[in-house]
Amino acid sequence: MITIDQLNPRLRSAEYAVRGPIVQRAQELEEIGRKVIYCNIGNPQALKQRPLSYVRQVISLLEYPDLLGDPATADRFPADIVERAKSILKHHPHGTGAYTQSQGIPFVRQAVAEFISRRDGVPADKDHIILTDGASKGAQSIIMALLREPRDGFMIPIPQYPLYSATLTLYGGAQIGYFLDEKHRWQLSERILTESLNRAAAQGIRPVCLVVINPGNPTGAVLTPENIAMVVAFARKHHLAILADEVYQENVYARGMKFVSFAKVFHDLHESQVTLFSLHSVSKGYLGECGHRGGYLELRNVPDDVLAQFVKQQTISLCANVDGQLATYLMVSPPRPGDESYETFVRERDDVLRSLKIKAEILGRGINAIPGMHLEVPEGAMYAFVRFDLPPSPASPGSVMNDDEQRAVRMERDEAYCLALLEETGICVVPGSGFGQEPGTFHFRTTFLPPREEIEELVGSLRAFHLRYTNRAVAESMGS
Amino acid sequence: MITIDQLNPRLRSAEYAVRGPIVQRAQELEEIGRKVIYCNIGNPQALKQRPLSYVRQVISLLEYPDLLGDPATADRFPADIVERAKSILKHHPHGTGAYTQSQGIPFVRQAVAEFISRRDGVPADKDHIILTDGASKGAQSIIMALLREPRDGFMIPIPQYPLYSATLTLYGGAQIGYFLDEKHRWQLSERILTESLNRAAAQGIRPVCLVVINPGNPTGAVLTPENIAMVVAFARKHHLAILADEVYQENVYARGMKFVSFAKVFHDLHESQVTLFSLHSVSKGYLGECGHRGGYLELRNVPDDVLAQFVKQQTISLCANVDGQLATYLMVSPPRPGDESYETFVRERDDVLRSLKIKAEILGRGINAIPGMHLEVPEGAMYAFVRFDLPPSPASPGSVMNDDEQRAVRMERDEAYCLALLEETGICVVPGSGFGQEPGTFHFRTTFLPPREEIEELVGSLRAFHLRYTNRAVAESMGS
Repeated sequence: MITIDQLNPRLRSAEYAVRGPIVQRAQELEEIGRKVIYCNIGNPQALKQRPLSYVRQVISLLEYPDLLGDPATADRFPADIVERAKSILKHHPHGTGAYTQSQGIPFVRQAVAEFISRRDGVPADKDHIILTDGASKGAQSIIMALLREPRDGFMIPIPQYPLYSATLTLYGGAQIGYFLDEKHRWQLSERILTESLNRAAAQGIRPVCLVVINPGNPTGAVLTPENIAMVVAFARKHHLAILADEVYQENVYARGMKFVSFAKVFHDLHESQVTLFSLHSVSKGYLGECGHRGGYLELRNVPDDVLAQFVKQQTISLCANVDGQLATYLMVSPPRPGDESYETFVRERDDVLRSLKIKAEILGRGINAIPGMHLEVPEGAMYAFVRFDLPPSPASPGSVMNDDEQRAVRMERDEAYCLALLEETGICVVPGSGFGQEPGTFHFRTTFLPPREEIEELVGSLRAFHLRYTNRAVAESMGS
Repeated sequence: MITIDQLNPRLRSAEYAVRGPIVQRAQELEEIGRKVIYCNIGNPQALKQRPLSYVRQVISLLEYPDLLGDPATADRFPADIVERAKSILKHHPHGTGAYTQSQGIPFVRQAVAEFISRRDGVPADKDHIILTDGASKGAQSIIMALLREPRDGFMIPIPQYPLYSATLTLYGGAQIGYFLDEKHRWQLSERILTESLNRAAAQGIRPVCLVVINPGNPTGAVLTPENIAMVVAFARKHHLAILADEVYQENVYARGMKFVSFAKVFHDLHESQVTLFSLHSVSKGYLGECGHRGGYLELRNVPDDVLAQFVKQQTISLCANVDGQLATYLMVSPPRPGDESYETFVRERDDVLRSLKIKAEILGRGINAIPGMHLEVPEGAMYAFVRFDLPPSPASPGSVMNDDEQRAVRMERDEAYCLALLEETGICVVPGSGFGQEPGTFHFRTTFLPPREEIEELVGSLRAFHLRYTNRAVAESMGS
């Protein structure tokens, strides 16, 4: 029988906090009848966000095309939806049940290219688009392709989305963490990037790629065009590719802020040297179609032979699921003015985005009013990365612990906090150590996806819990 | 800009013949208006196989649950289908748009466990089932989990399905090929297995797992229970895990043959030591739902800590697509006698399987009647692995080529043959070198999925082409 020590040590080391032990405990509590508020993961439809009708109507018709031949369908579905389903089947007669080209259905890739052109005013080429099972698979294919040996490193933000650290661990590459600047709205800092790079070089690590998440996960920050231009110049100077994770591009709430893509900044700077990989997904934005696992990867400034290797990599898993490809198509080509379904689309889209904006504000104001808690009100994405204070740990003053021991205790402390929060209130969040945080600070990531009433309740529970927990900690500390 | 030599050398080496250069050429020919018969890949619905109604009806309703509230739905869908969709939503209210548990939706895993118990008369546990995006992802997760270092090896059949060789190359493990015995209906031979193992050990390779594909791809062979029992004993003796790729389990056509699972043989032998990984998929069988990317992995004889590592590995990609999970649920729990949809289900299922059986026979008889061509009439799966003779190559007699050069020429020769076949007839098949073949033999793999008329036409074109091609080769050889 296979034993644990016969498994790949890289798998054993990989950690994915968003679905880690605290979430498993939450599932156990739920099974014994406790109410859990899942704020651990950006999974909108699990928290009652409704799917957009046009997406589901088209996919429903494509799954059972007999409906298209049924006279009653015309009464039940908007005319443009029926036409859209027919037109998809004309372009792609195999429907949802056949493997597609490994790179993705050609007309979907064409629609993605047109979407990028429309969004950014830049040229885009369908042959540089690969359709993927969600953005995660796109990120993993880039990491797999660029790692030649264990000392090759990816620069990843701290705090980061743990997909990156987990995949690097699993595939055997090096992580070069760079801190985001919490004091400057979590933007990237050239000084910090350079220091991280130098530290990595001193350890014999060869950086190959810089990962940027914009809007930020878990920070909720939106990067300015100037900050992006700085990053591009940094990558050019140090011969790095850029992986731009832009899955939250529709989720920008802060007044005056606007999503600007790396592709647009590249175009504006006439950047033709740095290789750019951009990711997008149907899971976030106003669609929130996480279960459909759809998304795309766009490659810029890559030679044809490199592109061919990326396409070949897709062939090994055959192709992305077809409903996900079609959801991606629908995301990049929503109903247009004049279409029968247009008004519904606009109403549903705006409802989702308005609700997220309001909930971000409620959460931000509410948490900032709790003594010992602070967050930057999220400008975008679906998350808040909340900083909280804890009383000095019993062992800290005059401690003889070394750095590693201190770190272990700190990690246990934010995890212990989140676990107690779950046990006492049913609120499930992810400890900051799962994303990375400045030494000596404590954070947790929460989404602001639950319904508005629950967010308000959540803020109240959090306040009561935090006071209780810190008082208890002080008492224990004095007792010890 | 990233250059080709900055890419992972393992990616550059990986080859996946089923979607290789010949298929790319076929796509080019199709784009300039030539008719191509795609026999390269088991993609039934691209070759006009109709999806089963019950699968699509349920998924269609789940994609747009508003239909469930519509009185007209009762007129249009069988009563049990509407009930089924409602019951799924009751068990899984998040529907198709939310991430699920990483391991897969619990009630679907429960249904899979019950399916295995019913099929084999053995106990099965939902917590030992992982739902995957097609069987390919299941296979890749096993390979990733069991490779500790480059000298760890997987025993894979020759000929094999190139997913295994490509993934081993990509993840950096060793391939230990073992020939299937063409003279004995492509069964496994203990002698050949032992020789392969010894050869690998002599090269310093440490075998960790034995891959068996049953029914066979590309061979179309169905293993007997005795042959499987031999394999289990071999694995026990040599401390190997078994990966049983059983995605063609519903595709058994030969009179008197029956699919027997590894799980059943394990149970009958009271095998409690060898670790077994079994794969199944919605892509094959009578569903043919390749585009939905659904399937499962069952683990037997694994300790809990090993199971936990497999589950953790799933978390890194969040979860399999939900429609694929639901298609898997529908595959393992089809309509039952008494259900309104039962008769349609039986008729559609039997039509698909009967048609495949007839086409396998037409192809088998037709090809065996071509001088210089031979195949075992497929007992199962969707493929025939056809052996064909070529005249001695110009360089062969009195050649001074070494083994490697000979091999290169041979590989070129079967590829050249398949390319000429494509160019002259539009028939797209995969050269035997993509799967592996005994040195000095030539094969190609073809599916028997095209409609019956096309299969008959295909046999005729193949006969004319083969005579033309071999005559030409003889003439060239004499001229040289």
